[in-house]
Amino acid sequence: MNAKIKWLREKIRGLDMQGMIVSNPVNVRYLTGINAEGILLLTRKENIYITDSRYIEDVQSIITVDDGINVYNFVDISSYDYENFFSFCENVGFEEGYITYATYKNYMQKYKANHLEETEGIIEKQRMIKDENEIELIKKACELTDECFKHLLEFIKIGMKEKTISYEIEKYFLEHGADDLSFETIVASGSNSSKPHAKATERKIQAGDPITIDFGCKYKGYCSDMTRTIFAGFVPEKIRPIYDLVLKNQIQTANDMKEGANIRIISRNVDNDFQLYGYSLVHSLGHGVGLDIHELPFISSKNDNILKQNMVVTNEPGIYIPGEFGVRIEDTVLITKSGCINLTKSDKNYIVVDEQSKNKNE
Amino acid sequence: MNAKIKWLREKIRGLDMQGMIVSNPVNVRYLTGINAEGILLLTRKENIYITDSRYIEDVQSIITVDDGINVYNFVDISSYDYENFFSFCENVGFEEGYITYATYKNYMQKYKANHLEETEGIIEKQRMIKDENEIELIKKACELTDECFKHLLEFIKIGMKEKTISYEIEKYFLEHGADDLSFETIVASGSNSSKPHAKATERKIQAGDPITIDFGCKYKGYCSDMTRTIFAGFVPEKIRPIYDLVLKNQIQTANDMKEGANIRIISRNVDNDFQLYGYSLVHSLGHGVGLDIHELPFISSKNDNILKQNMVVTNEPGIYIPGEFGVRIEDTVLITKSGCINLTKSDKNYIVVDEQSKNKNE
Repeated sequence: MNAKIKWLREKIRGLDMQGMIVSNPVNVRYLTGINAEGILLLTRKENIYITDSRYIEDVQSIITVDDGINVYNFVDISSYDYENFFSFCENVGFEEGYITYATYKNYMQKYKANHLEETEGIIEKQRMIKDENEIELIKKACELTDECFKHLLEFIKIGMKEKTISYEIEKYFLEHGADDLSFETIVASGSNSSKPHAKATERKIQAGDPITIDFGCKYKGYCSDMTRTIFAGFVPEKIRPIYDLVLKNQIQTANDMKEGANIRIISRNVDNDFQLYGYSLVHSLGHGVGLDIHELPFISSKNDNILKQNMVVTNEPGIYIPGEFGVRIEDTVLITKSGCINLTKSDKNYIVVDEQSKNKNE
Repeated sequence: MNAKIKWLREKIRGLDMQGMIVSNPVNVRYLTGINAEGILLLTRKENIYITDSRYIEDVQSIITVDDGINVYNFVDISSYDYENFFSFCENVGFEEGYITYATYKNYMQKYKANHLEETEGIIEKQRMIKDENEIELIKKACELTDECFKHLLEFIKIGMKEKTISYEIEKYFLEHGADDLSFETIVASGSNSSKPHAKATERKIQAGDPITIDFGCKYKGYCSDMTRTIFAGFVPEKIRPIYDLVLKNQIQTANDMKEGANIRIISRNVDNDFQLYGYSLVHSLGHGVGLDIHELPFISSKNDNILKQNMVVTNEPGIYIPGEFGVRIEDTVLITKSGCINLTKSDKNYIVVDEQSKNKNE
């Protein structure tokens, strides 16, 4: 049986559950490598993956005898089979944070389990700590992101639409071996940068614009996430103090992040420093990154947990002046015993693109 | 108060509910036009939309006094407020098919409602019947799709990667006024076309390939969906009978689709005809299209409901020979009293791209 499933079986046994229904396809992928739509059942007798005709060939080709997973097409599973998967099970775990209330009721009826028990994100919590292979894949996604950023610095010109830039990012990633974007790219120029979650629009880059680019890709399922706020033509004086304050806090946070550090305190430090200057941290300071772009742990002042070795999280302070501009600087980092390692490594000092166009645009 | 919220209030009153929690952002958009993250509460006293600082400016700018919706930032809502929103409500509706089991439990605690009651998709069911404005937006999305297809017929060349084509589709849509793709484009060439849900890969188009292109865009939130299977260089003899059989059934289905037609029977007709020739309908014949790319009604032999005027659905029979090739032909159609109107109108006869390259590639 594969090591991750073995781990999960031991874990649920410790929680007095005799079986589990894993519905979240990201958790299934984490446990099995299967990237499909279907359901993983850990029953007393076997590990079962039930999928449909669209995926069955692919799944069969991925699973080896060492995985110890029996794969079925759902058309071959009768209601009698469902009723018997968990016979003699007192408690069967399910993912209460993933399945809908309607699905829960459906499971109750279909599986005839004595008791469906909440599992409180056990798989998601385990996913926080990355193994060597996972770290390698995230590193690769981060490398592609740095390379894409380098390309962008040549590519971006004054007069170009935000959407043209976001499109170039997608093209670059797909042509350089990424599976996909890890989320919809943000390219927010000028006053658009004042919205933390702006999408790329038809707006054309103007001289003196800050341009916040928040982007990342997936490599074999694993995500990267990086933000840089760069400048078109020149760096406006009024933005410099804000940029400096954000960068100072981003670097301070990188210094603070290490095994054992309290997440709430790291987050409060940034907010406190921002407040000294009349600003505040309006969104959370970061989040875990892995198979999902946003996963545990969430780096915010509401989280009183500590960082642990081999967590991969973002470090992304930002300041936003409504209607004017915003600055965010973000890296994906790997937590170690002694500190954190930036997996995205692009320059964080003032970066000016299309500098020679400055005069013609003013 | 806006007409759709008024409708919903009357509807839930008839179900003996005194309030409702609308959590699904697509349903919120349908009811209010708001395209954000937040929650819509219909309480005894008011309609409330609670969002966060990322969206509050946008939402305030969309809502007018005629909407009768009070917008709040969630940081301004206390736990006491939540507890009182539904005071004196016996039954409060919720979306059991959207919220997770964990969210359900959280609502139970937060709102202190006497009873949270399942609403059995009342909003989704209403969304099946499109109004004039919705139909116009879907038509526009379908027009863009037809125009994109016309462009592709010039663009696609033998030797080109599937991903290059999918990328061109996205670029075309974004540059011609679409909000977004309505789903991840499928470009499946050669043997890849034998997988109904293939993604675009690095595979290069070869002479004699069938190329199944399944694509669509969103226009002001509303989706289009079209598939054509075209040919690179020439039409291989072995594919012709399959193509003819799929097309015959696609046209027959268009003839069958009208107000009052039984969905199960329409679907069975296609499957029966396919089976006469030794094939079968491996995926459903279609689905509703609107703010979601897949919405009610699902056109399959499991659905015993009837079609109604102003439903918008797809008509997409396909045959797939594992490891060899597949053919799917799909239109988005509008159901009327007397028949159906194809909203995607691209040619469905054999289409050969890059025909002149045939000789140099053989």
